[in-house]
Amino acid sequence: MAVQTVASTTDSAAGTSVDLGPAAALSCRECGHRVPLGPVFACEECFGPLEIAYDFSAYDTEELRKRIEAGPANIWRYAPLLPVPADVATKPNLNPGWTKLVKADNLARELGVDAGKLFVKDDSGNPTHSFKDRVVAQALEAARAFGFTTLSCSSTGNLAGAVGAAAARAGFRSCVFIPHDLEQGKVVMAAVYGGELVGIEGNYDDVNRFCSELIGDPAGEGWGFVNVNLRPYYAEGSKTLAYEICEQLGWQLPDQIVVPIASGSQLTKIDKGLQELIKLGLVEDRPYKIFGAQAEGCSPVSTAYKAGHDVVRPQKPNTIAKSLAIGNPADGPYVLDIARRTGGAVEDVTDEQVVDAIKLLARTEGIFAETAGGVTVGVTRKLLESGALDPSLTTVVLNTGDGLKTLDAVAGTGLTATIRPSLDSFREAGLA
Amino acid sequence: MAVQTVASTTDSAAGTSVDLGPAAALSCRECGHRVPLGPVFACEECFGPLEIAYDFSAYDTEELRKRIEAGPANIWRYAPLLPVPADVATKPNLNPGWTKLVKADNLARELGVDAGKLFVKDDSGNPTHSFKDRVVAQALEAARAFGFTTLSCSSTGNLAGAVGAAAARAGFRSCVFIPHDLEQGKVVMAAVYGGELVGIEGNYDDVNRFCSELIGDPAGEGWGFVNVNLRPYYAEGSKTLAYEICEQLGWQLPDQIVVPIASGSQLTKIDKGLQELIKLGLVEDRPYKIFGAQAEGCSPVSTAYKAGHDVVRPQKPNTIAKSLAIGNPADGPYVLDIARRTGGAVEDVTDEQVVDAIKLLARTEGIFAETAGGVTVGVTRKLLESGALDPSLTTVVLNTGDGLKTLDAVAGTGLTATIRPSLDSFREAGLA
Ligand SMILES: Cc1ncc(COP(=O)(O)O)c(C=O)c1O
Ligand SMILES: Cc1ncc(COP(=O)(O)O)c(C=O)c1O
Ligand SMILES: [Zn+2]
Ligand SMILES: [Zn+2]
Repeated sequence: MAVQTVASTTDSAAGTSVDLGPAAALSCRECGHRVPLGPVFACEECFGPLEIAYDFSAYDTEELRKRIEAGPANIWRYAPLLPVPADVATKPNLNPGWTKLVKADNLARELGVDAGKLFVKDDSGNPTHSFKDRVVAQALEAARAFGFTTLSCSSTGNLAGAVGAAAARAGFRSCVFIPHDLEQGKVVMAAVYGGELVGIEGNYDDVNRFCSELIGDPAGEGWGFVNVNLRPYYAEGSKTLAYEICEQLGWQLPDQIVVPIASGSQLTKIDKGLQELIKLGLVEDRPYKIFGAQAEGCSPVSTAYKAGHDVVRPQKPNTIAKSLAIGNPADGPYVLDIARRTGGAVEDVTDEQVVDAIKLLARTEGIFAETAGGVTVGVTRKLLESGALDPSLTTVVLNTGDGLKTLDAVAGTGLTATIRPSLDSFREAGLA
Repeated sequence: MAVQTVASTTDSAAGTSVDLGPAAALSCRECGHRVPLGPVFACEECFGPLEIAYDFSAYDTEELRKRIEAGPANIWRYAPLLPVPADVATKPNLNPGWTKLVKADNLARELGVDAGKLFVKDDSGNPTHSFKDRVVAQALEAARAFGFTTLSCSSTGNLAGAVGAAAARAGFRSCVFIPHDLEQGKVVMAAVYGGELVGIEGNYDDVNRFCSELIGDPAGEGWGFVNVNLRPYYAEGSKTLAYEICEQLGWQLPDQIVVPIASGSQLTKIDKGLQELIKLGLVEDRPYKIFGAQAEGCSPVSTAYKAGHDVVRPQKPNTIAKSLAIGNPADGPYVLDIARRTGGAVEDVTDEQVVDAIKLLARTEGIFAETAGGVTVGVTRKLLESGALDPSLTTVVLNTGDGLKTLDAVAGTGLTATIRPSLDSFREAGLA
């Protein structure tokens, strides 16, 4: 890993003057070592991942709640809890978030969950139709603060589109790296915004390794890699899912929440977001359980979970859930820790179960999810069957992406019949 | 056309008892003849189209404004102005609307519009990613009120998905008719919700004619065709675009608005919505201009406009803007009237200009529009060049659909390069 990935308390000049709102410093998740805010992601002491440390001390709970409720219908209503300047909503960005929390009574009935207890948090309503708009929005503000002019990333598909779109709107150059064999919808969407889109002969883990090399090379100098050197900022975007879910439940914690896992970042930050709401007094402190969901064909975390391991053994992915196909998940150990600490679990489903779950969600709630949503709904079903999920408790299932981007998964679905425009033909086809 | 398409003042028993909020009756757009609310769409006196007549007399302007502003972040904030029961937000539906009005300064710069004056109303954020969710939501409530259990429609693609999804969530059967050769994204999306999806060998106008036959046949009995026998209700959904645009502009009328035309329903109802806001005192009364946008390959309305005709001569569509490919637009004459009365115009662009405009919008604002959005942006550019649109006035361009549904239009867009995961390969490709 290259030098500029670690920051010392002295060398990060940029870090001392940036205004990223309540973000006070970067702090090591492993050893707690603190460094000033800057485009760095690994601890100089122990190489552990750096996270944002906040100063929330000035907030009064009820004032904060009112301020949030009076805020815009997007993630910036939570600006006081994010590493962004106070005037963030006035800058050119895509303003994702405040997506629907859908009471899913039809799905509940089919899965045997009590009426009124099952919800789908549907992030397909975001600007580029995945939760990645949330994380990119944070990384973009950090990139602005640190003076970058190019946005980059390694992506399993959704991030590519989110970065391309955000860069276009904000006037950044973009150069995005993806495995060469992604779904057409993701490739075209990532390309249409006009940035560079580079296919890498290899899987996501190869793409990611290459980006780590590039960041230490003069060719990548001055680039903001949203999920590498801007990762501490980027990752915080997933907290907004936790905030929105609780606010939409009437400032209540859910009892159970089912989250997809690729790198594991989203799951760990949803936990962080819930913890913050508790500490800030915005929700009542009571137990919640976080469940992780993977596809069997890329299940390094659920395999480790089931084996009782603390570390995750890398796998070579082979699943239709390409957006979750990270064989070597950076935050795997933290996910294991959170699932165990909260009393949740990590489970996986086959590709066939993923497809069935996509169709189940579509036909019950009118929500067309991408494969990642099939993974969470499929895992929810499996965990209900095994008894790990309690059907009497408030349960939120995340749909983090859009079915239009993974059409091939349900390509068998199509016309019921083709007829001539006549009643005779209608009857002949047995439709009358 | 079959008997149940026209209603007499006496025979519509269903109509007398239904609760559709402020909707008081159906009234003929041509002769003003009124009939009770019911699943009918043509005047018994003159066969003119029936529209909803409202009773808004009880509303106080400032109370109404407050009620709207305190409402949900979807179309039901305008429930007092729609043909829906007051408790509509508690029923299972997809709750579309309250989509983003994006200040498009990058696009403005490229098109020569004054800074801060150009906005894109981006309806790709709706549940099934087109404005059709708005109209279907109204038709669904009417179908519920009239006791239908099957939702149906003829569709150029987007309506099919919107009906399928809404029916699934609301527990209706659905049977949807589309031209057999639509885009894959639209076909798969329409099918995934589990309803019947029937391809018709012919174009949209053939599909529509067939549906009119079916509605008069026992086979179609008890079916709610959202854009045929429920059309008066359905069409009102487009008013919400006008409401949202004005509210998002701070309760102001836009000066100029560019709207795509297929059947012309949307454009006429946007005008109706603006007129209502003026009459209700929610916006200041001042002139606005409505511009219609078509693809050259299906431009019956712009052809009539340019020729100075009052009637529209049907065309055989041939354009990549399939969602707008209605060669015989039902509301064509009304569109002509509105464009002329407001001082607007109707213009068309070639398929090539549509593709260019899709890419322009994507690379300037990070919005990936379907071909219909390419049509409005392309027409906006053309009307600015011709001087018909004033670049110093507040202008709203509608993007009514999603690029993921018309990938083929920009299929040439893809990877900049494919490389091996190494810096050497990166340099060889000339990327460094
Ligand atoms: C749709 C979707 N859901 C979930 C994830 C998981 O994200 P994470 O890497 O934070 O675990 C991804 C990551 O690409 C994704 O694209
Ligand atoms: C994306 C899109 N925009 C606009 C329209 C135009 O609708 P109207 O028939 O109301 O003119 C349609 C109709 O199908 C559509 O699909
Ligand atoms: Zn450390
Ligand atoms: Zn009449």
